[in-house]
Amino acid sequence: MRDKLLAEFLGTYFLVFACTGAIVIETITHALTSLGTALVAGLVVMALIYSFHHISGAHFNPAVTVSFWLLGLISAPSAFLYIASQILGALAASGTVLFLFGDVAHLGATLPVFSWHQTFWFEFLLTFWLMMVIFWSSVHEKAAKSFAGLAVGGMVALAALIGGPVSGASMNPARSLAPALLSGDLDSLWVYLAATTLGTVAATALFRKLNP
Amino acid sequence: MRDKLLAEFLGTYFLVFACTGAIVIETITHALTSLGTALVAGLVVMALIYSFHHISGAHFNPAVTVSFWLLGLISAPSAFLYIASQILGALAASGTVLFLFGDVAHLGATLPVFSWHQTFWFEFLLTFWLMMVIFWSSVHEKAAKSFAGLAVGGMVALAALIGGPVSGASMNPARSLAPALLSGDLDSLWVYLAATTLGTVAATALFRKLNP
Amino acid sequence: MRDKLLAEFLGTYFLVFACTGAIVIETITHALTSLGTALVAGLVVMALIYSFHHISGAHFNPAVTVSFWLLGLISAPSAFLYIASQILGALAASGTVLFLFGDVAHLGATLPVFSWHQTFWFEFLLTFWLMMVIFWSSVHEKAAKSFAGLAVGGMVALAALIGGPVSGASMNPARSLAPALLSGDLDSLWVYLAATTLGTVAATALFRKLNP
Amino acid sequence: MRDKLLAEFLGTYFLVFACTGAIVIETITHALTSLGTALVAGLVVMALIYSFHHISGAHFNPAVTVSFWLLGLISAPSAFLYIASQILGALAASGTVLFLFGDVAHLGATLPVFSWHQTFWFEFLLTFWLMMVIFWSSVHEKAAKSFAGLAVGGMVALAALIGGPVSGASMNPARSLAPALLSGDLDSLWVYLAATTLGTVAATALFRKLNP
Repeated sequence: MRDKLLAEFLGTYFLVFACTGAIVIETITHALTSLGTALVAGLVVMALIYSFHHISGAHFNPAVTVSFWLLGLISAPSAFLYIASQILGALAASGTVLFLFGDVAHLGATLPVFSWHQTFWFEFLLTFWLMMVIFWSSVHEKAAKSFAGLAVGGMVALAALIGGPVSGASMNPARSLAPALLSGDLDSLWVYLAATTLGTVAATALFRKLNP
Repeated sequence: MRDKLLAEFLGTYFLVFACTGAIVIETITHALTSLGTALVAGLVVMALIYSFHHISGAHFNPAVTVSFWLLGLISAPSAFLYIASQILGALAASGTVLFLFGDVAHLGATLPVFSWHQTFWFEFLLTFWLMMVIFWSSVHEKAAKSFAGLAVGGMVALAALIGGPVSGASMNPARSLAPALLSGDLDSLWVYLAATTLGTVAATALFRKLNP
Repeated sequence: MRDKLLAEFLGTYFLVFACTGAIVIETITHALTSLGTALVAGLVVMALIYSFHHISGAHFNPAVTVSFWLLGLISAPSAFLYIASQILGALAASGTVLFLFGDVAHLGATLPVFSWHQTFWFEFLLTFWLMMVIFWSSVHEKAAKSFAGLAVGGMVALAALIGGPVSGASMNPARSLAPALLSGDLDSLWVYLAATTLGTVAATALFRKLNP
Repeated sequence: MRDKLLAEFLGTYFLVFACTGAIVIETITHALTSLGTALVAGLVVMALIYSFHHISGAHFNPAVTVSFWLLGLISAPSAFLYIASQILGALAASGTVLFLFGDVAHLGATLPVFSWHQTFWFEFLLTFWLMMVIFWSSVHEKAAKSFAGLAVGGMVALAALIGGPVSGASMNPARSLAPALLSGDLDSLWVYLAATTLGTVAATALFRKLNP
């Protein structure tokens, strides 16, 4: 368990550091473009899955851990410790970004670009589809599981491409929580927490119904 | 069969939502660039193949289903139900884009940029090659089939890169039909339906001739 | 042999159509950027390798066929027929580009951007390294051969990124010959033919020396 | 051993030629953008791993060789010869860039964009994570090792995307040393040597602690 929790802490740390750091560095230097920040999100997920999937399952996201608990793939106490590790990792990442660059771009926090209504539906849909790809490419018994890193990394990159300019493409409560807390910009946080949780629950219910 | 039809409905839904949504979001925000919208098309195909190939065969495209029926790999009644599921999924996707962003950029419909003659040949050639890659990377008995998601996703990305600025790079009757119907812009639809069907039939005839 | 030659004809057709078409379409629309044209080159190579490697070996390049003949992996008569098929495929591709877009951007011909001396060394070095990656990722007995499509496609994409703005990143005599012949722009052709041939011979000699 | 040292010499040569050449060519032509130079770094690492991992282990980086020595995976004399080969390869690469383009952009040397303090932490963090991905995707006994080329190549591309505009994203003492020596710009070299060494040692200590 120690190794699993450390993998979740470290993996979420680097996931949040790379994704929010990319936004902060793009804000300062204009060197990455939106395309670059989206590729960072997909590539970090792919690299981390091939590094830690055989250790902890490579969740790095409370929404993933909740769905695995709902599917009976992880016990309630373990899920609690996973989520605690992920939140600590995300907070450490936002702290690092703050230390290195100061309070720029709300530390890379996800914020609605247009209405909260568009943001809600985008985060719901993208989280639903992130979970669908995770379930059917890495949990389903007939999946070619070694390719799940490519499938899930590709899904995150495309979600960041289309969702980035609309909602910031969070799909991950820990990734939204940490920069919001440390930059003090908490007004929109509820939209991200609600939409990603509901998207996860909907995808989990569908997977369970089809694979009882 | 229920799981297969649901996979085709959901997969075509997300395929059309991502590809047409990318065009609409690019029109509104200019954040993706043509490169980004092309990468979205390739990545969504790759992620969906690794998620649903072991469920339904991951068609998401009436042209693919027709060719598999011509090759005797799917029965006529199943092919009919597959295509119906794909069209319903595509219509639901265009409805979602309309609901979220209004009638922007013809809901991401494919439209000829230059003459219909260039569009016809581009769609014919790109659909022919999409089917060639599908046949020889995932149907041919000696293919390294687990890499088909990379091969077909890469083929779609490159087709979207070169075909996007010429014809919109449809290669898929359902992907052209849904936004055309819901935005009411039906004038050019016949070019896409004719060219993609003929491209598929040509590739299927060649595959059948060489692998009797 | 019929299937092999057809695979070489069709594969070289699509390789040259995609790579030179990307340059022509970029010249007309400015939609792809240099990054997009380089990705097209890498992706078409990857998709074609996963489609036709199990048919013909997926050469699509006289330099590759010559090196495989030097290594004793293909007979002289077969090599001759392979190269004839590749040149015919490349000419058909340039003819298609001419038919669809007219004589734009010298039909995507490779031309020195700076001095012929820089072009010579770039084409020599890039062809040498393309062959090195082909030999050690797909011919060497201990290679993880199913990943060769990724390795060689990635090599072509990076060569197009750094070599595109210097020499056009040909690495393939057929790819340089066809648009030069059909656009009548033959002045620099000798640099590409000489440099790619010498690069191939150098890499082949090194592989043979180390793997007798 | 001869084949291993030659693989390290040649691989480091092409790695440094591609990464520093990309920066020089971008400086001259503005054709690649920061995104293109970052993709070059990731793609060259991926292509070289699939080519030479089965020969020498595909280090191409003194920091990697030091960590493998600390883990007892390579003997001290072999490590010394590996590092000498890598430095010679890197120097030959910078010599080639100087010969082809002259002393442009400090031959692609890594230089701090902002403070040396940010550069130190970025290089420390990115090298730490490069080593983490290498250890857990290619050394750990349960890793899906054939996917390590994708994982490590993806890690390098994302590091170059976020680290490029801050510190140049070296992560490799040989890659920083060679262009600094040949362009005579040695003032900041110590930051790169110190940060990459410390990042490696930290990651190695963690891997050793968790996998005794």
